[in-house]
Order: sequence, then structure tokens, then C-alpha cells
Amino acid sequence: MNSRERYEILLNKMNQYNSGDIGITRVAYTNEEQAGTHAFMRLCKDENLDIRLDPCGNLIARREGKVKGLPPVVMGSHLDTVYQGGKYDGIVGVTAGLEVIKRLNEKGIETDHPIEVVSFACEESSRFGVSTVGSKAMAGLIDKEKYRHLKDRDGITMEKAFALCALDFNSVDEASRVDEGFKAYFELHVEQGPILINNHKKIGIVTGIAAPIRLLLKIYGKASHSGTTPMSMRKDALLGASEIILEVEKAANLEQDFGTVGTVGVLDIPSGAMNVVPGEVELKIDIRSTSTESRNRVLNHVYETIAKVKEKRHLEIDSNVISLEVPVLLSQELIEGIEDICEKKELSYEIMQSGAGHDAMNMTRLGPVGLIFVPSVDGLSHHPDEFTDLDDILLGIDVLEAAVIQYAKA
Amino acid sequence: MNSRERYEILLNKMNQYNSGDIGITRVAYTNEEQAGTHAFMRLCKDENLDIRLDPCGNLIARREGKVKGLPPVVMGSHLDTVYQGGKYDGIVGVTAGLEVIKRLNEKGIETDHPIEVVSFACEESSRFGVSTVGSKAMAGLIDKEKYRHLKDRDGITMEKAFALCALDFNSVDEASRVDEGFKAYFELHVEQGPILINNHKKIGIVTGIAAPIRLLLKIYGKASHSGTTPMSMRKDALLGASEIILEVEKAANLEQDFGTVGTVGVLDIPSGAMNVVPGEVELKIDIRSTSTESRNRVLNHVYETIAKVKEKRHLEIDSNVISLEVPVLLSQELIEGIEDICEKKELSYEIMQSGAGHDAMNMTRLGPVGLIFVPSVDGLSHHPDEFTDLDDILLGIDVLEAAVIQYAKA
Repeated sequence: MNSRERYEILLNKMNQYNSGDIGITRVAYTNEEQAGTHAFMRLCKDENLDIRLDPCGNLIARREGKVKGLPPVVMGSHLDTVYQGGKYDGIVGVTAGLEVIKRLNEKGIETDHPIEVVSFACEESSRFGVSTVGSKAMAGLIDKEKYRHLKDRDGITMEKAFALCALDFNSVDEASRVDEGFKAYFELHVEQGPILINNHKKIGIVTGIAAPIRLLLKIYGKASHSGTTPMSMRKDALLGASEIILEVEKAANLEQDFGTVGTVGVLDIPSGAMNVVPGEVELKIDIRSTSTESRNRVLNHVYETIAKVKEKRHLEIDSNVISLEVPVLLSQELIEGIEDICEKKELSYEIMQSGAGHDAMNMTRLGPVGLIFVPSVDGLSHHPDEFTDLDDILLGIDVLEAAVIQYAKA
Repeated sequence: MNSRERYEILLNKMNQYNSGDIGITRVAYTNEEQAGTHAFMRLCKDENLDIRLDPCGNLIARREGKVKGLPPVVMGSHLDTVYQGGKYDGIVGVTAGLEVIKRLNEKGIETDHPIEVVSFACEESSRFGVSTVGSKAMAGLIDKEKYRHLKDRDGITMEKAFALCALDFNSVDEASRVDEGFKAYFELHVEQGPILINNHKKIGIVTGIAAPIRLLLKIYGKASHSGTTPMSMRKDALLGASEIILEVEKAANLEQDFGTVGTVGVLDIPSGAMNVVPGEVELKIDIRSTSTESRNRVLNHVYETIAKVKEKRHLEIDSNVISLEVPVLLSQELIEGIEDICEKKELSYEIMQSGAGHDAMNMTRLGPVGLIFVPSVDGLSHHPDEFTDLDDILLGIDVLEAAVIQYAKA
């Protein structure tokens, strides 16, 4: 059985751990996700890896190196999904790690450094509203008292969910490996965007992970009758909102060289009606970049627009920053290393950013990080129709294998 | 007791017919509205008027004229309200009619033509989604089989609501008085807009009633991840919507000389989320004018904008006309008559349009119509805080009285 056939069976086997009929639902700390994680644990044991589950539920499968005491080269990603997600987000990176181990075992390759496959717990924010919980814990970044009481849609707290998985939330900070550190961390992941597919590239080499700043705007005008209020006597909150929305786009367009994006994904007119001039509009703005400077330029343009629109349209506008995260830049050495590998293998590649968060961003606290993307058809993700060609995943695994061998020193 | 005191008592007495604690709720064909109508009927009897309730529930109170067979001069408006409405919309016109009768009786004035006070049933669309039902019936404009099955929010059909008021819906078309015709119809109503208050005018003389054309737009782009989708690869339905919204304003602003207005009061992003580029937006556009030509110019501009936005942003846009009504022009003779009265009484007045619909628009089928506005503080209407100064109402009644005396020939 060749690597392609073997990997396809592994991916399909792991995707059987799924609740529900539409897409894949393998939500963090549920029975399906736990069963999947434990099944994966047994498959790792079959490859003679040392297995442990840390206090956050991260699975760590380790292949010892020849030289004692060296830090590990780690391959990681996650097995959990959103509700009604797809067959590729997360699971590709974890199963790819095991396939790399199988190849090394098959070829009898030994390395100086230990090699690990890590399946991080609770990467998706779907259940508790917070993302990359397992990798945060491993990076010593858990806000324990805040996370403990977070509830899922059924009212179950994170602490209770841990207990149902035989995990003790009180020990969660013992998952930290900050003192230990890694030689290198590699993550293979589906792009979840359209860039590789549109540019006909096979491999994405990620230079940085964008982080969002999010604003909530409340725009207050004056509700009035759409028939009896002359245009000149209106204070229409929706017109103000429309101007701001278009300026978010304009400002982000000016920053395209930095991969910066700006989006209004939520707009609500409380008590909007056909015959009422909108008196109040709420909207949410999401601005992301790997460059804090670029992101700030967009933000400042938005603030200037808000001031102009207030003045011009006699509106009141409250703006609140509801989320502010720091962009992460990845290791230049690893970027160049992966680039070399692609060149040698004659694989088309794109140096790019990640607009979505990944466990990789927390792993920058433990060592140099390389993040490798494979193409997502239609850029679709978090959706039952999410699709990545098996051949493309195999190319990604080839790159991952070469990188691991290089850094673990065969 | 002077006219002001007497009128204030009448208005307050009628506003006691009200369900609920917030504002006035006297919805068509409910117990409160029926009780109010019957109380008003008794008050009309006290002034020696002949009373009848037509098959649509319109109350007609008639003071005979000296000359047999002449058509009546009619004063009308409505007693029903929206849910949680105010103390002035509709009821001012009906009670003003009775106060005019009281003055004529007091002064012993007889007229050649009969004079009627009409309280139209179900002017507001709040209950069944259709407005001016009673005056439509009187004008022979009822779509009987359509209206019969219309339901209120509790699932009660119009036919059933009629039955609960001891009215037989099958006879509703017998309410038509098209064959009879009126000498003149006068309606006193609160403006429901800010023009008189802002321009410091006491009387509005209405030249025409604007009618809306309403469009439902469905804009389809492509939902995608707000982090991973570069600006240049997006099909953002909300950006398209924002451009259209601003062009509706621009087009209406160009038609301000015609009193034309354009409004987007409803916008919805189905499954909108902070981290999703909007793939679908629904919005509703309301364009009103007394000039069909002006309204069409705005409409054409909207259609041109839709075509441009589709092309530029690679969106699909479905547009549907969901309502198309014909503007009504009022009698030039009556406009000039009312203007003369204001001049003689040295009352400040504004020649203006009505952006909202009124029973008066249906009455143009029965004879010449004059519509008289009194100021609405803040332009507020359909709201518990709706307010018109009692002194201003009294000035309106003075004008109404003079007009009726003039056309009924004292």
C-alpha cells in the first residue's frame, strides 16, 4: 500500500468520528472528539510512539531521537471541528504528522532530535467562544479563571466539560511547556481562503498570522416617517453606516500590499421598518493584518470617517473596541527552509499570510514556527463542502516530511 | 364653556377608549375601537345628527340641509390607531368635525347642503397590513376576496373581525357611495412630519398625497472568511447594498423640489457574522412623491445603480416591486379656498404635500377634496409622544368650520 492509499484510509477513518448528518461535527471535549483522539492515540502507539495526554487534553505522541536531551521537532494541528464543519480543517495536519512518522519508520530513518505529533485540544471557538485553547495552555497563555466558567450553548462550563473527559481543569496550567521549548514547530493546514487555488499554487508558506481588531459601532440618528420627513430634515443612521462600510473597504484596499483586510459582517437596524427612516444602526467591523502599522492605518481611517460622518449627518456614533489581538510573525529561517524544499521538489508555492488564527501562533512562544498551507477549493472552510484534493495534501505531507527531517537532523 | 374647553373634554373623553398602558391603542375592529365609535355615535346624536353605521363599520353622522337632494359636504377622518400610537393621529379630524357641528348648532346656522361627519373604519394598516379600508369601501375600491382572508397577528381574518363587530363582510361593497358623490370632502389631520413645526407655520394646505413605490432587493455575493479572503477576491453583498443605499439618497435629494423622498428602512444580512464576508443582503426601498415623473426618475436612477453595482462587484441582484400606488392630486379649487380662509384669518400656512396616506386620497373618487394639516411637534407620529398643541388644533378647526360653511352654503 502506497503512502497516498494509506493516508486516504487514515483520513477517512478519523472522519468517522462525527456526530450529525451534515458535514463533520467533532466539537472539542465531546464524545466524538474524545473517541477520535483516543483512536488516533492507538494508531500512534501502533507506530511505536510514546503517548501522553496533557492536563488540557492535548495528545502528544513522541518518537525519541538519537541524542538525549535535545528539544523536539513538533508537528501539530487539531482534530476538533466547528458544528457542521468539513473533512480537512485541522485533521489534515494531525494525520499528516502521523503519515510522516510512518514514512520515517518505513525508511528506518533515525533523527538526532525527538519528533512529536501533537493533536491540540479545542482549537475552534465554536463551543466556548475562545479558540486555540490547547495550544494556549501549552504556551502558558491560558487565562484559567476566565476560561473555567465559560459556557457552551447548553450551559456546560469548560471546567465541567473537562471533567466529563476525565480532565482536571485545576491542573490545566501544567500543560505549559514554556520551560522546555521546541527545536521547531511545523503545522500543515488547509488554507481556508482562495489565494492558492486562484493563483494555481500548490503550497502556501506563511509569513505571519493576522490578528483582528474588532469594533462595535452604534449609530444613533432619528427615527421618523419615511413619507412625511423631507430628505433635508432626516438623521438617517443607515446612510451614515453605509458611508462607513464603504470607507472600511477603501482603507483596506489601500493596504492590499500588506494583506490587510477590513470587513463589516454584521449590521442590524433595531426596529427597522419599511416606512421608518432608520434611527439606530449597529455594525461590527473586523480589521486584520500581520502588520500592526497597516492595521492601525485602516483603523485610523475608520475613526476619521466616523468623525466626518457624525458631523456631516448630525449623528451620534459610539465606537467600542471589542477585540484586539496582536499579529504574529513566523520564523524567517523556517520560511526560507520551506521555500528551499519547495524549490528542490519543483513545487509551485506562494509566500503569504494567514488571515485566520491557528495553533501555530501560540507555538511561537516555544520555538521557531513554520506554517504550511495546501489549497482549499473555492476558499471554502468551516462548511460541509470544504474540500482539498488528496494529491495536494500529499504534496503538503512531502514538504512537511522534508522539513522535519532537515530540522530533526536525520 | 368655550369651544376650546369643550373640544379638550371631547378629545380626552374619546382617548379613554384605549387598551394598554403605553400610548393609545385603539386598533380597528377591536372592542376599544368599537366602544369608542359607539360613544362617538351617541355624542353625535346629542347634536341631533342622523346616525348610521355602514356595512364596513364607517360611522356617518348627518346634519340635513335646507335644500333637498343636494350632495353633502363631508368632514372625515378615523378613530382607530396603530398599536401604542398617540392621542392625535386620526381622532383630531373626527372630533373636529363634531366640534364644527356644535358651533353651527350653537350659532343656529343652517346650510343648503347636508353636512356629514364620517369616522372611517380601519385607516391604519397595523392590524391587517392594509390601510384606509373604510374609505376604500366608501369609494368602491375594496378588493373584497383579497381582504376577506387577511389575518391579524393573532390569526383572526378580516371577515371574522367584522363578524365580531356584528358586521357582515359579504355586504362590505354596499358601503360604496360612488353613485351619490359629495359636494366636497374636508379632512383635518396632524401633519405627522416636521415641516410646519420647522417652518413655524400653523396650517398646512395639502396639494397632493404621495404614494410609495416599494422595492425588495436581494443581493447575492459570496460568503467567505473575513480573515482569509483578500479584498480583491471578495463578492461582498453589503458593500453593494451600501452603494445602492447612498444612491437612493442622492437621487431623492435631486428631486427635493418635488417633495420626493427615498428611504431604505429595512436591511438584513441572513446568517451575518463578524468573521464572514456578507454573501447575501436583503433590503427594502421606499420612494414617494406626488409627482409620478419625479418618482420614476428616482426609480430609474436606482435601477441604473443596481446595474452598475452588479457589474462592478460581480453580484447578483434581484429586484421586485412589492408595492406600487398612484399619487393623488387634490382639488385646486379647494386648495385656493382654504388659502383664502387662512389669509382672511391671518393664519400662517404652508402649501405642501402629504408623504403619508390618508382617507382623503380615496375620497377624491367621490368629489373635490381638501386636506388640512396642523403641526406635529418634532414631526413625531405613530408614537406615544405624538403631540399637537391644543391651540393649533383649534386653529385647524376654525379653518375647517369656515371651509364647511363656505361649501355647504350657509
